[in-house]
Amino acid sequence: MSRVILTVCLNAAVDVTYSVSALVPGSSHRVSAVRARAGGKSVNVARVLRQLGEPAQLLGFAGGEAGDVLRRDLHDADIPAELVPTAEPTRRTVAVVDPLDATLFNEPGPIISADEWALLVGLFRRSVFDADLVVLSGSLPRGVPITAYADLVEIAHAAGVRSIVDADGAALGAALIARPYLVKPNAAELAALLGRQLDSLERIELAARELLSAGARNAVVSCGPDGLLAVTEHGHWRAVSPERIAGNPTGAGDSLVAALARGCSRTSADQDPGWPTVLADGVAISAAAVVVDVAGEIDVPTMHRLRPLVSTEERSST
Amino acid sequence: MSRVILTVCLNAAVDVTYSVSALVPGSSHRVSAVRARAGGKSVNVARVLRQLGEPAQLLGFAGGEAGDVLRRDLHDADIPAELVPTAEPTRRTVAVVDPLDATLFNEPGPIISADEWALLVGLFRRSVFDADLVVLSGSLPRGVPITAYADLVEIAHAAGVRSIVDADGAALGAALIARPYLVKPNAAELAALLGRQLDSLERIELAARELLSAGARNAVVSCGPDGLLAVTEHGHWRAVSPERIAGNPTGAGDSLVAALARGCSRTSADQDPGWPTVLADGVAISAAAVVVDVAGEIDVPTMHRLRPLVSTEERSST
Repeated sequence: MSRVILTVCLNAAVDVTYSVSALVPGSSHRVSAVRARAGGKSVNVARVLRQLGEPAQLLGFAGGEAGDVLRRDLHDADIPAELVPTAEPTRRTVAVVDPLDATLFNEPGPIISADEWALLVGLFRRSVFDADLVVLSGSLPRGVPITAYADLVEIAHAAGVRSIVDADGAALGAALIARPYLVKPNAAELAALLGRQLDSLERIELAARELLSAGARNAVVSCGPDGLLAVTEHGHWRAVSPERIAGNPTGAGDSLVAALARGCSRTSADQDPGWPTVLADGVAISAAAVVVDVAGEIDVPTMHRLRPLVSTEERSST
Repeated sequence: MSRVILTVCLNAAVDVTYSVSALVPGSSHRVSAVRARAGGKSVNVARVLRQLGEPAQLLGFAGGEAGDVLRRDLHDADIPAELVPTAEPTRRTVAVVDPLDATLFNEPGPIISADEWALLVGLFRRSVFDADLVVLSGSLPRGVPITAYADLVEIAHAAGVRSIVDADGAALGAALIARPYLVKPNAAELAALLGRQLDSLERIELAARELLSAGARNAVVSCGPDGLLAVTEHGHWRAVSPERIAGNPTGAGDSLVAALARGCSRTSADQDPGWPTVLADGVAISAAAVVVDVAGEIDVPTMHRLRPLVSTEERSST
């Protein structure tokens, strides 16, 4: 049986990086280097899956000249993608990087029309039958219903396919109702969703249990250097990296999602995926993303070096 | 006789404007508005000529997705353009505008290959026969010879067509050798070219005379609120706006070039174009550009209001 992981990127972007010697507001800067590549959380997930040797397929939207850049870059990255054309252009993000800092400018992105959304749903409905698992990751573009992820989770459900949702705010809240297989907020997103401070592991664990009460079958909360906390239908675990990794944390969460998608896709929906192994892989793979200075890429030697050192402990789930 | 003014834009750009509430280095910004339009000095000149009802035609380069934006925007602006395709993409400029300031990021732009440059020269050679006047304006892209403007001035010369050069630094210095009809540096560019401070009108006038000694037939130096200083083969003049205009000075120089091109194109090469009138038009038209917040556009009522109030005085040319 060939496994395909279907990643859905409703709000893909072209990520542009400008290198400057020093950012001075109010002045004119000569940009010494320009890089542009396909971005957005699901694109990063698909890239890391690809790097891990997992077959990934991407669904999304593309419009305007930035949409052409997106298509071409996904093609060059060897990620099969079906992109619904949009009347409004794909968004760009511009990161101005000087030796001290990065300053980000995020375009608002297209407003998706009802027809465009309906086309994407139709495409999803057909593609999901070939998928072993669905990843729904990132923010929602303007124009799609706030229940967008819930709608897709339900369609996947009906086809017998599990969904992983990595979203925050209202998009995550609405998705829970459709009972996704797994949600992966970080601690800050979870705190924002529940509207309270989560200043200890115990409080994060309690909050994650609420995600299960609200509909999620499993929840993995990423806590930065404090590792992962998993509240699952097969038990509670914590997994921690053996060392602090310095570097660029952007994209670490997406690498974790790729690791979780790979791990869970190896078993069927009613089996225990072997959470301690899945989580330890997740810690090693997301740490291996931090050492790389672009999102959507991992350093494979770092992954192999850290993996045997990750400690995973079961927590009493009272 | 139908007049066409041929504007050559070797380093066209797509000018992008991002509106933000406040630019804070090191942080992430939600961009509330995105505008993208064809830019570059010769594009601005062509736009203003068009607004003045003068037939303008544009020659230049266009590459990549930004090149597609350029083509489309020129088409929408009703500016006939012939653009040599380039392997490398057209540059973008990003202006981040908050209520206090504008901060600019200028991409380096394409490196033009020898073949691409040869194609543009060939296109110029054919187009110049239909032109009454040529405008060569803006910086040179990487890859074209530093004598690019000189080469084009000579080709125009051979076809009996006059050239206006608006450039600075080495591109301007090299152009002088080909004896362009008119050069239009601003006072700062002139000071930089000659490597000395120009802190009085007398010194600017002396410096402008050196431009004529070096090959230019006429020179108009723009001195911001101090108006225009013209050193021509028919005399020396100064023209000043009756009032200080507050606003956006970007593009005022390009509007001045459009005014000079229009004025000079009305007479043949051996006639006096009527400098006092041409200069007074130039002052009114460039002031009318300052009140508009985008480059390449003038406020026609402001032009009509100021025009009769502009004072032009002849200077003794000893």
